[in-house]
Amino acid sequence: MRGAVLYGPRDVRIEERAAPTIIEPTDAIIRMAATCVCGSDLWPYRSLQAITGPTPMGHEYCGIVEEIGSAVRSVKNGQFVIGSFFASDNTCPHCHAGYQTSCQRKEHVTGAQAPLLRVPLADGTLVATPGIPPDDLIPSILALSDVMGTGWFAADAANVKPGATVAVVGDGAVGLLGILSAKQMGAGRIIAMSRHPTRQQLALEFGATDIVTERGDAGVARITELTKGIGADSVLECVGTQESMMQAIHATRPGGYVGYVGVPHGVELDGRELFFAHVHLHGGPAPVRQYLPKLIELAWERRINPGRVFDLTLPLDQVAEGYRAMDERRAIKTLLRP
Amino acid sequence: MRGAVLYGPRDVRIEERAAPTIIEPTDAIIRMAATCVCGSDLWPYRSLQAITGPTPMGHEYCGIVEEIGSAVRSVKNGQFVIGSFFASDNTCPHCHAGYQTSCQRKEHVTGAQAPLLRVPLADGTLVATPGIPPDDLIPSILALSDVMGTGWFAADAANVKPGATVAVVGDGAVGLLGILSAKQMGAGRIIAMSRHPTRQQLALEFGATDIVTERGDAGVARITELTKGIGADSVLECVGTQESMMQAIHATRPGGYVGYVGVPHGVELDGRELFFAHVHLHGGPAPVRQYLPKLIELAWERRINPGRVFDLTLPLDQVAEGYRAMDERRAIKTLLRP
Repeated sequence: MRGAVLYGPRDVRIEERAAPTIIEPTDAIIRMAATCVCGSDLWPYRSLQAITGPTPMGHEYCGIVEEIGSAVRSVKNGQFVIGSFFASDNTCPHCHAGYQTSCQRKEHVTGAQAPLLRVPLADGTLVATPGIPPDDLIPSILALSDVMGTGWFAADAANVKPGATVAVVGDGAVGLLGILSAKQMGAGRIIAMSRHPTRQQLALEFGATDIVTERGDAGVARITELTKGIGADSVLECVGTQESMMQAIHATRPGGYVGYVGVPHGVELDGRELFFAHVHLHGGPAPVRQYLPKLIELAWERRINPGRVFDLTLPLDQVAEGYRAMDERRAIKTLLRP
Repeated sequence: MRGAVLYGPRDVRIEERAAPTIIEPTDAIIRMAATCVCGSDLWPYRSLQAITGPTPMGHEYCGIVEEIGSAVRSVKNGQFVIGSFFASDNTCPHCHAGYQTSCQRKEHVTGAQAPLLRVPLADGTLVATPGIPPDDLIPSILALSDVMGTGWFAADAANVKPGATVAVVGDGAVGLLGILSAKQMGAGRIIAMSRHPTRQQLALEFGATDIVTERGDAGVARITELTKGIGADSVLECVGTQESMMQAIHATRPGGYVGYVGVPHGVELDGRELFFAHVHLHGGPAPVRQYLPKLIELAWERRINPGRVFDLTLPLDQVAEGYRAMDERRAIKTLLRP
């Protein structure tokens, strides 16, 4: 089969790879309906995160079960399934607490930018949809594999409550879906921080009530002004840089909540500053598996349309252009058809 | 009047100071029933926190209202009152959210190691007890001014729930009262980290079920072992050093809560490490004012006895020995009688 492999800085290639096979009896093989490029794929693509050699890429997936290991009980061949970027057994204490991305047996799922994918711990990881989704629903189902669940976790970790004033730092796909999530949770006011017209537009469509184009201290000052000097109740940090993290913390009222899901790159928090900021801080790799049943229901009933973040669809063979378009911010998120 | 003044490293003196007077119409003057030395007083005493010149010390207080400003409405002369180390108006949005130590008009209360004290924003800051407390109740009432409320906030910020497994880092007065607080909140298991026999004894009296004497990574390993590899649901960080903070974060299960109340000194948190730890983090200066009505009720009915942390009582004139005993860890906490 032909899959995407990262070779070095901005060098992603489509090449012949061995098709995956069942290794553990708990594995399943999925035939991909669609896959995509994640904002986090750009970190190694931009060589801001080291790779040790040619690396098969992709961790977002949905499709039809092609083969299952002998121990798999909860999914079967021919079902349409979706799973998270971390495989989890969904039975350990951390999974029971809703933190499947810290599962005691967690495994990375990688190499999803390909027609076939091996998913470990299939019983714990995969959730079947009510049927085979129609083609126009595939983007929204695919989004649940990571980006939508991550936006949802950002809003959940930021304790978004009905009527709350929410600010979202980051206008990538995760930030935009954080807006959609906050709206679903009943936020009264949603301030999107974005200076990019296309993204502002989608932010408004997803439920943003205000757009702030300033960044850093100026952005914080603008949010302080918009909230009458109080600060936001909940702030979603969806970038992962020092600037975005401090912007999030400083835009939050004392006693408010920061939910952070951007994988931190070079972020250092000063203990004393955090102490006097008086905020709640929670985040990490989104436990997407926890949210899948609910999010599948919402997407299936077309009450949410997270697939809107895919503004570029390419055949898998053109994966290099898919990365390039996101790197250059010409595309919010690229969907790949195997 | 004679009050305590810090001159430099380990040089605290009792000396003649001008008695406080009403400056703002919202002020009150309190005649101290008792005051004490705080663990946080030891930071400047040990010159780990700079002072700019001779500094009147003390911020824990309770006593009888001697004089009120013309705008004060909620307390009157002759009442026995208690307040927090930060004065707050108790009407601003942050106060309404329960974060009085981030009040938009907050002011430090200082110079309490003296017979008389000026308390700003008296209406928002002071809470009257149901009557004049009997002498043996004074230590427990005094403790509510800071140390008990801070231990309570640590447990509250760490989201202690009935049945929870709780670990407490720090066996100072705050840590010990964190144990008492966790017990009040219904914790099922309370692991005290202490290697000091007297403090271990008080920890057990306050409700600790386990004692861990190891520190740092060894302490974390012991907690992991005690919790069958899971980690604690709630960890109270009551010290404020890099080691204690990391000990707290690493001892918490994914999805668990760290409540931190030790004022951080030289603490730096690595964003990536925090991200993958998957913990909730909340802390800061304890909003003691929020808890005062409830804690006064508990202490008044003798359902809690936080005054047990005072294992040394001295006349105010011997304040220097009071600091020395705490600095050398001969005393947990020193009560001073003016």
